[in-house]
Amino acid sequence: MEEYKELSPSEFFYRNKEIAGFSNPARSLYTAIRELFENSMDACELNEILPEIVISLRKVGERQKTEIYRLYIQDNGSGIPKKHILNALGKMLFSSKYVIRQSRGTFGLGGTMSLLYGQITTGKPVKVVSSTGNSQIHQYVFKIDVRSNQPKIYSEKSYRNYRKWRGTIIEFYLEGNYPKAMRYIINYFKLTAAITPHADILFLDPYGTMYYFPRTINKTPQPPKKIKPHPHGIDLELLKTLIERSPSHMTVKEFLVKSFHRVGSSTAVKFLKYAKIRPDTKLGDLDDTLIDRLYTALTSYDGFIAPNSDILSPIGEDVLREGITKEFRPEYIDTVTRPPSSYRGHPFIVEAALAYGGEIPGQAGDITLFRYANKIPLLYDEGSDVSYIVLERLKQSYRISSDKPLAIFIHIASTKVPFKSVGKEAIADAPEIEREIELAMRTLLRNFIKYRRRVVRKREAVRRLKIYEKYLGLIARFAKQLAGREEVDITPLLRKIRSRYKVEESVETD
Amino acid sequence: MEEYKELSPSEFFYRNKEIAGFSNPARSLYTAIRELFENSMDACELNEILPEIVISLRKVGERQKTEIYRLYIQDNGSGIPKKHILNALGKMLFSSKYVIRQSRGTFGLGGTMSLLYGQITTGKPVKVVSSTGNSQIHQYVFKIDVRSNQPKIYSEKSYRNYRKWRGTIIEFYLEGNYPKAMRYIINYFKLTAAITPHADILFLDPYGTMYYFPRTINKTPQPPKKIKPHPHGIDLELLKTLIERSPSHMTVKEFLVKSFHRVGSSTAVKFLKYAKIRPDTKLGDLDDTLIDRLYTALTSYDGFIAPNSDILSPIGEDVLREGITKEFRPEYIDTVTRPPSSYRGHPFIVEAALAYGGEIPGQAGDITLFRYANKIPLLYDEGSDVSYIVLERLKQSYRISSDKPLAIFIHIASTKVPFKSVGKEAIADAPEIEREIELAMRTLLRNFIKYRRRVVRKREAVRRLKIYEKYLGLIARFAKQLAGREEVDITPLLRKIRSRYKVEESVETD
Repeated sequence: MEEYKELSPSEFFYRNKEIAGFSNPARSLYTAIRELFENSMDACELNEILPEIVISLRKVGERQKTEIYRLYIQDNGSGIPKKHILNALGKMLFSSKYVIRQSRGTFGLGGTMSLLYGQITTGKPVKVVSSTGNSQIHQYVFKIDVRSNQPKIYSEKSYRNYRKWRGTIIEFYLEGNYPKAMRYIINYFKLTAAITPHADILFLDPYGTMYYFPRTINKTPQPPKKIKPHPHGIDLELLKTLIERSPSHMTVKEFLVKSFHRVGSSTAVKFLKYAKIRPDTKLGDLDDTLIDRLYTALTSYDGFIAPNSDILSPIGEDVLREGITKEFRPEYIDTVTRPPSSYRGHPFIVEAALAYGGEIPGQAGDITLFRYANKIPLLYDEGSDVSYIVLERLKQSYRISSDKPLAIFIHIASTKVPFKSVGKEAIADAPEIEREIELAMRTLLRNFIKYRRRVVRKREAVRRLKIYEKYLGLIARFAKQLAGREEVDITPLLRKIRSRYKVEESVETD
Repeated sequence: MEEYKELSPSEFFYRNKEIAGFSNPARSLYTAIRELFENSMDACELNEILPEIVISLRKVGERQKTEIYRLYIQDNGSGIPKKHILNALGKMLFSSKYVIRQSRGTFGLGGTMSLLYGQITTGKPVKVVSSTGNSQIHQYVFKIDVRSNQPKIYSEKSYRNYRKWRGTIIEFYLEGNYPKAMRYIINYFKLTAAITPHADILFLDPYGTMYYFPRTINKTPQPPKKIKPHPHGIDLELLKTLIERSPSHMTVKEFLVKSFHRVGSSTAVKFLKYAKIRPDTKLGDLDDTLIDRLYTALTSYDGFIAPNSDILSPIGEDVLREGITKEFRPEYIDTVTRPPSSYRGHPFIVEAALAYGGEIPGQAGDITLFRYANKIPLLYDEGSDVSYIVLERLKQSYRISSDKPLAIFIHIASTKVPFKSVGKEAIADAPEIEREIELAMRTLLRNFIKYRRRVVRKREAVRRLKIYEKYLGLIARFAKQLAGREEVDITPLLRKIRSRYKVEESVETD
């Protein structure tokens, strides 16, 4: 006989922590740091605050194969209102991320998962201090009760906020393996800093090394905005929910205008004609057949304007170029921004860059792929990412030959990045996204090939010029001796050749 | 100001259905079929029933870019007890899979997710009919209420079970794209049939084609058994739960013997000496410091016997060999079973096969990887799977040259397969698993190289022999003419050469 059991959301994720990126001590340490860091960045950027984030990791003990660390993270973000602090951090599936908006946080469970992981591995409670900048600072010490999915308070204090401090501090203990995770953690900060020059990031590692990524731009990017769902992005379940939550005497036309992104009064009228539903039909009078017809029409009508991409917050070509140049000092850099597009009703933008030479890592001819989604660098599971698949395909058709390593940077900004797992490491292959990535990469590769061809042609010309310089003089001298005439000046001739092959006068021919 | 919200488990998975494999109509159709099929197989095999499973997919409607299908699946498994039917299928995180045992189902949510996906995309309720073989057959028509995570009954009936029928039938509607998913679905059944010759599987596809995989072995494999947790597989949270759930007057020695796999009375005594805890300490007297010490000792003590692998249900080399031969008719096949091992307290076994030539797909020199976990074929996300990574590495060092395509089959059986996502497609790289996969592959590749060398050497010998046969006769004749002697019989000489190069008499030399 089978035993049937019910799990709380905490218990489910606790048992399956691997799917959220907590698979071994090294990876778990990396995941915990990035999840909390991303929450901090969101708490700043979504509120137009220039981020100042301090992360400190200290080794406090050892077990047989792993180590125990204390992780401290402080931000100057919006802070969490008192009534939400415990639930936001001590209860699974309770979050401020459950709105339609571009943000680093996606599933609204990374922060709580990190704290739960710490609790599972060390048994110690979490300390959180937060203030929204009002008159009070609140401090809680708590654990998560896995079975009931509820926070369990150990202590609770409030302080007067004399200096109007605003932000959140979290401190907790967790098992980890810094020596193994170090490369990923440092890379993560380095690659984040490369695209967020408006952030001030300080990381103190367990060896006492300070990694400081100072702010270089004093301007926050345009924060992403919340939107209503686009008609092409809904499903039948959501449509029914939206109808249920509206007053039953509301007309279907009013309902459409109120509930959907990009549906104005005239669009609604045109659409309802297409759907063969009378605009003044009351919501209460919609039966299952009519709702089904409404749904089919909503998802198939092509008269809706594409979702507005103004609500997204891309990196921007200038910032991308500057950041990559700062971190990698390449010889050549090229950037491209694709026009906004959408998949299943979710707006997105692809930005990309190609850099060559300088401090780009790898061997001659290598192409390293750097992936970003909503400004998060993605370091694991490259092999199953859509960008990787596209790049592998393009490598076949472009056959880049290069004497130095190359790097391609891809950033996808969207209200909903189709991550393959809760660990947020690989992006699924939505056809529309795949297409935009391919077009961006094609442009970059074509431009690079042209550039290389110019460089190679110039090098070839220099070589030829060197030969001409060497022999033309001799020929001229021989010719003079043969004819008994004066020596010919070959300088104008060489200049002509130089200009033909576009070699500047200053280029040394040896 | 941020909005904070709480989601029910249903709502969470509904919003993030991509992470469970429901990312587009084709993939979702594939996922729904496999999740329900795997539940059916588990319902048979875990109860030593020879599986007879019928799956029928019919197209019933069309939308702009997708189609609506009716999916019917019937098994002769254990059936679901009446009181659990609605929760098991209509409530997320309610399942019979939350025990420690090898089974296809892992997360206990695939079935409910499939039905929810159908409901989201078509708005239609699900019909389920089930009986455990007792006097009644129960039928429910229901939907899942996403916000409350509760089943919502539409109709409910019971019939007298005259013929003692036992099993479960599920019928529901869902959006899909069969033309695109077809290749995956057929492959999935084909690859499953290859390793489960004791199952009878019938799939009727929307084109009316019948795919029948008949049973060829009338013996169910040894069913996997449930176990208690191994001391090396627990975390602090679980230890505390186990202590809380035991009577406080129980001694710590009794507790260890009762709660853990592989801990007998004498092991418990030896261990407690190592942990410096008195065996007769009452559970009620364990404070946080002692529990922490107990935990650290449990995970670090190396005197525990490795988890028992008898509770696993591998495919078996014979079945693997027979199944692959049946489906691919290779020229050469080799199998290997690694000794049982464990990672983080979870027992596992790696089985592998290498097949060459015959109907193995691909080009000469290609190595196709077929991955299985707990008898499920894994068809997506190969690039981030541990087997793929190991194989790519080994390809570098072995440099297999082959005139025909090769295939490598890898099966991992475990009480807990470390899947990277809820979609169960890629396996994470636990070092112990990676090691066993590598050793299995190395054995197969070495054996194959030896085989190829023998084949090539033999071919070379045949070539040489052909030359000898051609010229030795001539030489003998010339020698005779020169010496004026009788012709020499070269047959014994040729036989000697044949035997030296191990070419059978029957081998044609041209």
